[in-house]
Amino acid sequence: MHILITGAAGMIGRKLTARLVATGVFNNQQIEKLTLVDVNAPQPPEKFTGRVATIGADIADAVAARSAVAGRPDVVFHLAAIVSGEAELDFEKGMHVNFDGSRALLEAIRASGDDYRPRLVFSSSIAVFGAPFPEVIPDDFALTPLTSYGAQKVMVEQMLADYTRRGFLDGVGVRLPNIVVRPGKPNKAASGFFSSIIREPLNGEDANLPVDEDVRSWHASPRAAVGFLIHAAGLDSKALGQRVNLTMPGFCCTVAEQIAALRRVAGDKVASRIRHVSDPLVIRIVAGWPSRFDTQRALTLGFQAESSFDEIIRAHIDDELGGRIAA
Amino acid sequence: MHILITGAAGMIGRKLTARLVATGVFNNQQIEKLTLVDVNAPQPPEKFTGRVATIGADIADAVAARSAVAGRPDVVFHLAAIVSGEAELDFEKGMHVNFDGSRALLEAIRASGDDYRPRLVFSSSIAVFGAPFPEVIPDDFALTPLTSYGAQKVMVEQMLADYTRRGFLDGVGVRLPNIVVRPGKPNKAASGFFSSIIREPLNGEDANLPVDEDVRSWHASPRAAVGFLIHAAGLDSKALGQRVNLTMPGFCCTVAEQIAALRRVAGDKVASRIRHVSDPLVIRIVAGWPSRFDTQRALTLGFQAESSFDEIIRAHIDDELGGRIAA
Repeated sequence: MHILITGAAGMIGRKLTARLVATGVFNNQQIEKLTLVDVNAPQPPEKFTGRVATIGADIADAVAARSAVAGRPDVVFHLAAIVSGEAELDFEKGMHVNFDGSRALLEAIRASGDDYRPRLVFSSSIAVFGAPFPEVIPDDFALTPLTSYGAQKVMVEQMLADYTRRGFLDGVGVRLPNIVVRPGKPNKAASGFFSSIIREPLNGEDANLPVDEDVRSWHASPRAAVGFLIHAAGLDSKALGQRVNLTMPGFCCTVAEQIAALRRVAGDKVASRIRHVSDPLVIRIVAGWPSRFDTQRALTLGFQAESSFDEIIRAHIDDELGGRIAA
Repeated sequence: MHILITGAAGMIGRKLTARLVATGVFNNQQIEKLTLVDVNAPQPPEKFTGRVATIGADIADAVAARSAVAGRPDVVFHLAAIVSGEAELDFEKGMHVNFDGSRALLEAIRASGDDYRPRLVFSSSIAVFGAPFPEVIPDDFALTPLTSYGAQKVMVEQMLADYTRRGFLDGVGVRLPNIVVRPGKPNKAASGFFSSIIREPLNGEDANLPVDEDVRSWHASPRAAVGFLIHAAGLDSKALGQRVNLTMPGFCCTVAEQIAALRRVAGDKVASRIRHVSDPLVIRIVAGWPSRFDTQRALTLGFQAESSFDEIIRAHIDDELGGRIAA
């Protein structure tokens, strides 16, 4: 079993790599090789007994994309992307990385020919949806994104479905919820504050809240996201059918409910470290995002998310803080 | 008023050109210039008193695309495409013409910079939808095409909406129904038989029906299609809102009902010229197509189609046969 991960140096990429290394097997098969690709070559994982190839490359480059799949990985996790805020600020970079990079990867696989038909798991996003929304968004709702990031994700989803239908590869697109609590430094995602208002207070630091507390979102933890990707990689194609892009389950709550959960889990002092500092760009982007889904198809196919925001906070404390909270 | 038409040598392109030349005005402004682009330079229209530029070029070529918009047309009708059957048989050609050609055109407009922001009307298709469907398909239904042609149309729709949202241009996507009765020779569209079973019998010739008579589709005449495009070109952006891609109204009927309408309009002898000759590829492609819509948004915005198949046949007899039917 040979597994390729693009965007392997990113937050989800590193956690996915760590999970695969920790289990050592995928679908009851020994993982013999990992190919890890990112703009800068990722660090090889410690404690992995199989072979590791690390590649620093822009996969929008056709030669680099072909080189990445030359070893014919059985499973490809395609996570490489720039985030929503950055794709909004730099249109050309967004098209280059999020669309052209994906197309080059898909084309490299198609060009391999023969009977090479890897399972390709694509990390899409609920940003493929755009307001106005019904109270609960069904699986067959229109794709009308209101960010360039969302538009680029739809375009790749369409290629993924068409390449799968034509037999060029075996794709599954997983539309990730807002992933909270992201560890480490803030990135340029407009959704970053959903994490920082939990993460920074737990570290004993103040955090800025750029939107009103009644803003609602659809959340899952990094741990759940890695679970979605691995579950997608093992899905039966027949059960999946032709609509290969799936909205992932999550937990819907308001910012106020996030803060209440933080208070329950970590106490008043921690929760008091959140300050309201309004940001018009973030307010506008987030207002167009969806917040509540009926993810019937994903649930039927066995995808699982957290069922409370408390659970999401505890996953962060366990996975990132060694179970400890700053006083 | 300067108008650019890509795919101007195609069936709809020629009819659109003829209509614009016949009226001579658009939105109460004199049409001073027409730029007509196709792979082979289109014939300049007769009886047009303004300036005409005809260009033979592949607009997927960035230089050609820039040259096409160099004169800063006020309205761009982007019709250039290869049809569904051909895009299914030749994946690379479909991506090149239907997607890369559209992207190059949009990019050429974006690269013009300044305050150049033309109205761009894109001829999309109901092939952006794919089975399974509800009994009636609403405006906010998911985009899950089952052909490469449909996937390419969705991808361009997404770019059109994003370019519009970002202010690079002012787009409207019109999802055309099956256009019947197409005049002239059959093309490679899988939907071709919907026209040929009417056109050939009216010309005194036999026609092959590759599907069962209970196959249902969503129809409009070439005359109605030209009307959609011109109406879209004059739409108010505020009324349109951010969901710039619209499913066009049409008339839903079965092949059996088409044949019954032909019998009513042209008699038993004409209707008896249809022969059943099954074609598995056409059956498969058409089975994934939608057939009945609630096009609330387009109707509210003033788009109009025929309200019976008899009317569609009569439009063909008037526009193409000079009102006469072969005995």
